[in-house]
Amino acid sequence: MPRFAFRIEYNGSPFCGWQRQQSLPSVQEALETRLALLNPTEPRLATAGRTDTGVHATGQVAHVDLARAWDPNRLMQALNQHLKPLPIAITACAAVPDDFHARFSAIERRYTFRLVARRAPVVLEPDLVWHVRGALDLGAMQQAAAHLIGHHDFTTFRASQCQAKSPLKTMDEIRIDELPYAAGSEFRFHLRSRSFLHNQVRSIIGTLERVGAGKWHPDRMAEALAARDRTACGPVSPPQGLYLAGVGYAQDPFEGR
Amino acid sequence: MPRFAFRIEYNGSPFCGWQRQQSLPSVQEALETRLALLNPTEPRLATAGRTDTGVHATGQVAHVDLARAWDPNRLMQALNQHLKPLPIAITACAAVPDDFHARFSAIERRYTFRLVARRAPVVLEPDLVWHVRGALDLGAMQQAAAHLIGHHDFTTFRASQCQAKSPLKTMDEIRIDELPYAAGSEFRFHLRSRSFLHNQVRSIIGTLERVGAGKWHPDRMAEALAARDRTACGPVSPPQGLYLAGVGYAQDPFEGR
Repeated sequence: MPRFAFRIEYNGSPFCGWQRQQSLPSVQEALETRLALLNPTEPRLATAGRTDTGVHATGQVAHVDLARAWDPNRLMQALNQHLKPLPIAITACAAVPDDFHARFSAIERRYTFRLVARRAPVVLEPDLVWHVRGALDLGAMQQAAAHLIGHHDFTTFRASQCQAKSPLKTMDEIRIDELPYAAGSEFRFHLRSRSFLHNQVRSIIGTLERVGAGKWHPDRMAEALAARDRTACGPVSPPQGLYLAGVGYAQDPFEGR
Repeated sequence: MPRFAFRIEYNGSPFCGWQRQQSLPSVQEALETRLALLNPTEPRLATAGRTDTGVHATGQVAHVDLARAWDPNRLMQALNQHLKPLPIAITACAAVPDDFHARFSAIERRYTFRLVARRAPVVLEPDLVWHVRGALDLGAMQQAAAHLIGHHDFTTFRASQCQAKSPLKTMDEIRIDELPYAAGSEFRFHLRSRSFLHNQVRSIIGTLERVGAGKWHPDRMAEALAARDRTACGPVSPPQGLYLAGVGYAQDPFEGR
């Protein structure tokens, strides 16, 4: 059967997350039921990253096997048409070889986290950023984040229900940018790794926020990591600032799209 | 009576615009009814810019006379508390002299317009940007916009119901930036003038989009302006990409806030 890969954007607010759950709206179910309108049977999607409730994506990747050899652009258009008015859009579609797997072929995941620090409430995009009232120190957060770069046991930053076989991961990058935001600052955290543990990004962001707020010394991040103990972690950030921004493959299935 | 100035941010989607209207929700009514909870009588706000239905603000300015000499920060906090869950926030508040007038003291208005050009639907922030499906040529739009800089008769770019006495305005700046946006581009238009005619920004943006799409030669902008004829204008853009971004005064009442 012809295999297709999709790059997918969604607003995670109305969904229980990517993964299908009985009687709760999921991104996966929304996509699979719409694909069923274009295929003799309802197909199953395999995905690069199972995002949690309220987490968004600008570059999620999933693949599916369909009965027909669709033109990828027509398939994308038809699916986007059927997805309306849900906040899910296919932003790229490609025919891929049978050995392409959205999850197992992925060699890199990129997450972005948006945090707005200002006194006043955030009213333009409350579901799209994490709002904190106090000012944050960019330099202190960058110093703390540097301790996490490289190959480490990330047990401290891993949800207790995480099902990964090993807590060992290699963090390739944590870049933090400060951008102007009316009456405050926006901080954008860009994290890059081959793969992440469950809640790893939100655990790291929540802890970095404590450093930025001056409640934690930047070096406490190194101690927390070395402790390999979940209780050494700072608070886990809320989901609404988190975006699965991209997935990397040895050969980009969407090259030039 | 003590006079206070507010800097105000709002999502214009659920409102009929700034100005009070019988039986329609307006930003002005929302603010005045909340101020009435803090003052013996319901006060009237004067504003720098009367935004239309669906138009947002990140830097609207209004002033009000209140019975009590509030601490500005406490007033801001109390008002933000009462405004919940409406998408309106006071981002700065200052005590101002009696001769300060949000509208008549203003010497500059700044508008920002967000346009996303990509094939796929925009699902993360559909109410916050104008979405067009085709790619746009930044250079052509910049060339066209340059024709509008300076002192001109803007009759072409003025709504027929505009109540301004004169169509003569001085456009100080139209800056257009292209930013990366998943599977497309975002264009941010920054317009600056002492004051604007009704629908002037949306008339200019809608016309610039035609230039960017290759439907209009950039020089047609100069011809349209010279025609001083509403029918020479391109289509008026929708409101949801437009933000009143700031208002300038000889002395900034919110300096340092």
